[in-house]
Amino acid sequence: MTQQFHGNTLSDAALDQIFNEARSYNGWLDKDVSESQIKAIYELLKMGPTSANMQPGRFVWVTSDEAKERLAGYASDGNKDKVRAAPVTVIIGYDIDFHEELPWLFPHVDAKSWFEGDEEGRKEGAARNSALQGAYLMIAARALGLDCGPMSGVDLDAVTKDFFADQPRVKADWICSVGYGDPESIFERSPRPDFKTFNRIV
Amino acid sequence: MTQQFHGNTLSDAALDQIFNEARSYNGWLDKDVSESQIKAIYELLKMGPTSANMQPGRFVWVTSDEAKERLAGYASDGNKDKVRAAPVTVIIGYDIDFHEELPWLFPHVDAKSWFEGDEEGRKEGAARNSALQGAYLMIAARALGLDCGPMSGVDLDAVTKDFFADQPRVKADWICSVGYGDPESIFERSPRPDFKTFNRIV
Repeated sequence: MTQQFHGNTLSDAALDQIFNEARSYNGWLDKDVSESQIKAIYELLKMGPTSANMQPGRFVWVTSDEAKERLAGYASDGNKDKVRAAPVTVIIGYDIDFHEELPWLFPHVDAKSWFEGDEEGRKEGAARNSALQGAYLMIAARALGLDCGPMSGVDLDAVTKDFFADQPRVKADWICSVGYGDPESIFERSPRPDFKTFNRIV
Repeated sequence: MTQQFHGNTLSDAALDQIFNEARSYNGWLDKDVSESQIKAIYELLKMGPTSANMQPGRFVWVTSDEAKERLAGYASDGNKDKVRAAPVTVIIGYDIDFHEELPWLFPHVDAKSWFEGDEEGRKEGAARNSALQGAYLMIAARALGLDCGPMSGVDLDAVTKDFFADQPRVKADWICSVGYGDPESIFERSPRPDFKTFNRIV
């Protein structure tokens, strides 16, 4: 039986760590992120829900100087040095043929057949659900005491061709640095909307 | 100065609550979710990062019997009763003209101009970033002691026309019930991949 937590709110410190005090960093302290930390992030993010457990995200964790330099070459001018300085930058891609994996990811029904012949629908589902997984990745990293720096300023076609050359079904979608954020590298937090601005209760 | 949590891992109980023991529910206990709980979810989710603070998500929280019945009418057969039974089902939409709001959401540069004349790019950015916000919504609800039941089996065009009739720039993207999950309504957890299946470190 799964454990439930009805009515239990996480501590203020935990909510601060994953939401209220967490920030997107532009610079990084000179401190490594280990392979076991990267794997711990994935162990959490993979538990987050995706439609029909499709798990369409494909993740390339860029840690070597050589790979960072290649990735920096495709980043916009403002992002090149961020990629070089971060201990890790993960490329979040998605597999538009994720349905090929559904026989083992969602074994109790023939979910693969739902997506056959509908490449446009698969692309939409893969993009939406890999974005969910990217959000889980950031929350997981924060929950493990790390900071994130998500970036969309990058030549996605070039990143796809280079880093997913052996996976022609996969498209790169965005990138996110992970490490120990340098508090000197952040600015004032941008304004957040009131509830009524973008919400309705009906 | 923002608070940092470097090296601090959330407790096992907290990680269980937001990731490891949390499940997507198909049925709900007969227990209300209050307006103040809905607002508390939004207060957390809005702190999560979006590209250029675009905050493209538009949220309609369906709580009345009348609105639930309308939404159930657009849901797939398997989802109709879930929508009727849940105390709240939120419609996650996105505004493809989110850039009109950037002068106040991202005030320190002219970010609006980056997106003018590029409707295709705006749609992609709005879809990706509203999906991030939907993931923050689910993690926030769980962090507050609630459960979620995300669903994509719904006629999105019909939901858009009905629930966003007064907001022609907004498209519905998926729906998610929120409440106190009925433990009888879940099945075995679907398999999760090993790290090496969908990840590489380079």
